[in-house]
Amino acid sequence: MAEQAPAAIGFNSRRSTRHSRNISGFAAFISLKTGEIWGWEHDDWGDPISVDRTIDAVQVDEYDALVIPGGQINPDLLRADEDAVIFVKDFYDSGKPVAAVCHAPWVLIEAGLARGRKMTSYHSMATDVKNAGAHWVDREVVVDEGLITSRNPGDLEAFSAKIIEEMQKGVHERRAVA
Amino acid sequence: MAEQAPAAIGFNSRRSTRHSRNISGFAAFISLKTGEIWGWEHDDWGDPISVDRTIDAVQVDEYDALVIPGGQINPDLLRADEDAVIFVKDFYDSGKPVAAVCHAPWVLIEAGLARGRKMTSYHSMATDVKNAGAHWVDREVVVDEGLITSRNPGDLEAFSAKIIEEMQKGVHERRAVA
Repeated sequence: MAEQAPAAIGFNSRRSTRHSRNISGFAAFISLKTGEIWGWEHDDWGDPISVDRTIDAVQVDEYDALVIPGGQINPDLLRADEDAVIFVKDFYDSGKPVAAVCHAPWVLIEAGLARGRKMTSYHSMATDVKNAGAHWVDREVVVDEGLITSRNPGDLEAFSAKIIEEMQKGVHERRAVA
Repeated sequence: MAEQAPAAIGFNSRRSTRHSRNISGFAAFISLKTGEIWGWEHDDWGDPISVDRTIDAVQVDEYDALVIPGGQINPDLLRADEDAVIFVKDFYDSGKPVAAVCHAPWVLIEAGLARGRKMTSYHSMATDVKNAGAHWVDREVVVDEGLITSRNPGDLEAFSAKIIEEMQKGVHERRAVA
């Protein structure tokens, strides 16, 4: 596990940062631009986080898992960025775990990864997930072919544990066949 | 026109407030709770707006048109509120104009109004609109059977003009047949 490094693209809150860092002791924060990014913490902006890499400069083979944080704004900006959508699609096609929490499944929808998958999401956007051809279920964490989804911040413990478990399993060979 | 009153549910920014008020000189601001609501103005919160009515207390026959403002957060909260979704559906079924700008088409999707309609939306969520069965087009304002949609704040002039035009046309009789 020591050499494994998950990447988090976009950003939500200090809470998801802490969870991402806990997964293997190291995570790279990938965003659309360099500089600092902030999450919204209940009623104010959280502490700034430095962006490690920009989405146009990263390669799939540099990371062992991809985590897409939630919030309403972050995934909406990511799904409108062509580099971000291609990176998510390529990462999934590599067979390595891709995880999305809260509203982040919008990015999975945009990358064409939802069709036929068992998934969950923040409850408000369940209709979008279903309309994209996924089988939406109301569960704290759902895994289907290395695609890991959770509903809300209350699910983060189970979400993180499942990411670690999937990283330990390694690459999903069956995915390239689909 | 003097007696016509459009209702705006949810809220985005001072700009959409101004546009809503301009439509006929009066608009009621309907929200999920009483009190004041704020929109995000470029880099800070805008001036507070007083909520006129709450969604659980309004009737379709009190208003002549319904405007749903955009932003990523507002429509996401509205679509998760059962009273709001039912109100939008009932308003549309009454044959009176229903207008949605930016991300507000998420509420139309939730109310089951997108299927078979020609619509536009903020570009980031075009996939959700298409997946809901609508024919998405990239135009500043689109009208289909009294359902008026626009893409972004730059379209607000055309959006407001079209709302006024549709209010002048009156109730869409054909809708009840569909």
